[in-house]
Amino acid sequence: MRKTLRTIEWVGHQPGALLPGKVRLIDQTRLPAKLVWIQTADLRKIWTAIKTLQVRGAPAIGIAAAMGVVAAVQKSRARTGAELATEVERAADYLATSRPTAVNLFWALDVMRRLARASHALPPAELKHRLVAAALKIRDDDAAMCRAIGRHGAKLLKDGDTVLTHCNAGGLATAEFGTALAPIYTAREQGRDIRVFADETRPLLQGARLTAWELGQAGVDVTLICDHTAAQVMKEGRIDCVMVGADRIAANGDSANKIGTYSVALAAQAHGIPFYVLAPTSTFDLTLASGGKIPIEERAAEEVTHGFGRRTAPRGVKVYAPAFDVTPARLIAGIVCEKGVLRPPFGPALRRACAAG
Amino acid sequence: MRKTLRTIEWVGHQPGALLPGKVRLIDQTRLPAKLVWIQTADLRKIWTAIKTLQVRGAPAIGIAAAMGVVAAVQKSRARTGAELATEVERAADYLATSRPTAVNLFWALDVMRRLARASHALPPAELKHRLVAAALKIRDDDAAMCRAIGRHGAKLLKDGDTVLTHCNAGGLATAEFGTALAPIYTAREQGRDIRVFADETRPLLQGARLTAWELGQAGVDVTLICDHTAAQVMKEGRIDCVMVGADRIAANGDSANKIGTYSVALAAQAHGIPFYVLAPTSTFDLTLASGGKIPIEERAAEEVTHGFGRRTAPRGVKVYAPAFDVTPARLIAGIVCEKGVLRPPFGPALRRACAAG
Repeated sequence: MRKTLRTIEWVGHQPGALLPGKVRLIDQTRLPAKLVWIQTADLRKIWTAIKTLQVRGAPAIGIAAAMGVVAAVQKSRARTGAELATEVERAADYLATSRPTAVNLFWALDVMRRLARASHALPPAELKHRLVAAALKIRDDDAAMCRAIGRHGAKLLKDGDTVLTHCNAGGLATAEFGTALAPIYTAREQGRDIRVFADETRPLLQGARLTAWELGQAGVDVTLICDHTAAQVMKEGRIDCVMVGADRIAANGDSANKIGTYSVALAAQAHGIPFYVLAPTSTFDLTLASGGKIPIEERAAEEVTHGFGRRTAPRGVKVYAPAFDVTPARLIAGIVCEKGVLRPPFGPALRRACAAG
Repeated sequence: MRKTLRTIEWVGHQPGALLPGKVRLIDQTRLPAKLVWIQTADLRKIWTAIKTLQVRGAPAIGIAAAMGVVAAVQKSRARTGAELATEVERAADYLATSRPTAVNLFWALDVMRRLARASHALPPAELKHRLVAAALKIRDDDAAMCRAIGRHGAKLLKDGDTVLTHCNAGGLATAEFGTALAPIYTAREQGRDIRVFADETRPLLQGARLTAWELGQAGVDVTLICDHTAAQVMKEGRIDCVMVGADRIAANGDSANKIGTYSVALAAQAHGIPFYVLAPTSTFDLTLASGGKIPIEERAAEEVTHGFGRRTAPRGVKVYAPAFDVTPARLIAGIVCEKGVLRPPFGPALRRACAAG
């Protein structure tokens, strides 16, 4: 079996020392045509990589930003920890301007800032090492979370099963393995043969460009379909379960994910196919009683009317392009997080998972 | 209100005489960017128009072919009707090579052939007039069939209703008015305000390119959505009914239509929204007991992977791209044909409609 793809890593350092090093990440804007790696210690290039979606997916962005802070200060000549901490703040402020709404980005930058502030009494060389360790921990924690979701989710898969997925909640969006795709990679590591149908996911085609690509790279048998073909494939008896990610999960289990997920959930219900949502507990928002409270971002009409560089709809046509939809809890057979597989009723199950250490 | 679009017409003749004339049709390959009319009496150009989908939609193709036969022989110097009939056969044979599987094409060419054979004793000038009259009758019959579907279907719409449609079963596929869109045009002629949500219809985007365009031309308030957004729009309470066309309807009412229709039907059922199929009785295939017997054509992978002139999926990825799916009769609230609105149980209703004069 082929090696798991590592979307983002800290590389280029000498054996036995982590500094100085470089960020290495897949340029996702070049996929699926070409696999191009960006390897850099240049803060501006890391900012640009986040800004222009060369790196995308909330966890992957957070990791890139944390490593970016390290890259920015690793050759600093600051004579005190306090001086270095100021440089950390400056780099973090700059990286925070790359994408205004990515929660993981701000969270990861805050981890780095807090560490620098708390440790400003240390010698600069020591603080640098704590910073790189913190960045690598963000990466490793993310990978471990994905692995845990993979382990729990893999119990839901039998040898020979076929999974349908929507959008890309795969390794490319995280450090490795992903969330919705993690059980597929885990089951394969365990020697089971799992096949996948990937919705192309209009309008931006994350399924066609990213999911089909990363599964193909891992040697998984993947078939690409137009989104509306999911129901037909289910009708033909070719799907054993659905696995999708989530952007936010309300206290009752209602789950917001990429637009089109709800349509897949309805089709799954009509065919008696279990529909699973896979996401870390950090996605659970227990302050929202139900999915009706989740705000739904609307995207620009051009994403629909200008497919890939060419206008394919009449000039001036009205477009409705929500970025997400909410799948009601009653259509969900299980929510798989790093703590385990949660089953309905989701209210108490989600609370327990968040309370567990 | 704006004038109804006439997709294909016989024009250019002198007042009081139908010959010689020209075929005028919309070049659908230029839509939605430009409205370009093709006006020609050149048999090769008409063949090319059919071949290259400048004219598409089974009824429209049949009309173009019949008019093409007239154009081919209208200036013939044949001295006898028999000589002219031979020229008709030759033109029909040639046009029949344009698209191998379009049933209406062969049917329309046969009408012209049979007329020429049956009337070969007439003087050439008289036969020519019968030929042009026959071609215009094919057009007028199609327009009348669409108008009848529009009349019956319009009874299903109230002022202010919003209809969701999939693909293009509109005026562009017929002489005018279409089938699925006919009730919308009729209701508007009757002074009712009807709004439409149009599925873009991957992979070839007939909804975005053609339906959104022709409804916009007619001044109908139309909103374009990605196919998988239909369920979300229904959930938001914005859809009063679904109206789609059909390529073939089995004896029990199971209806084959553009891939994605079944997914829309499932979503409509989940939200209690009536789902109507609109198609002429010529679409009914009473020799097929159920939809399971309808053969489903598979399309080339490239239509999905090269959607927009550029490769948007990994090289060599497997693709499943059925051209049609079958919506089971139990999801259909009514089948609207030129005879009226048929209601379940569809078995007897379809037989009665086919038996009626």
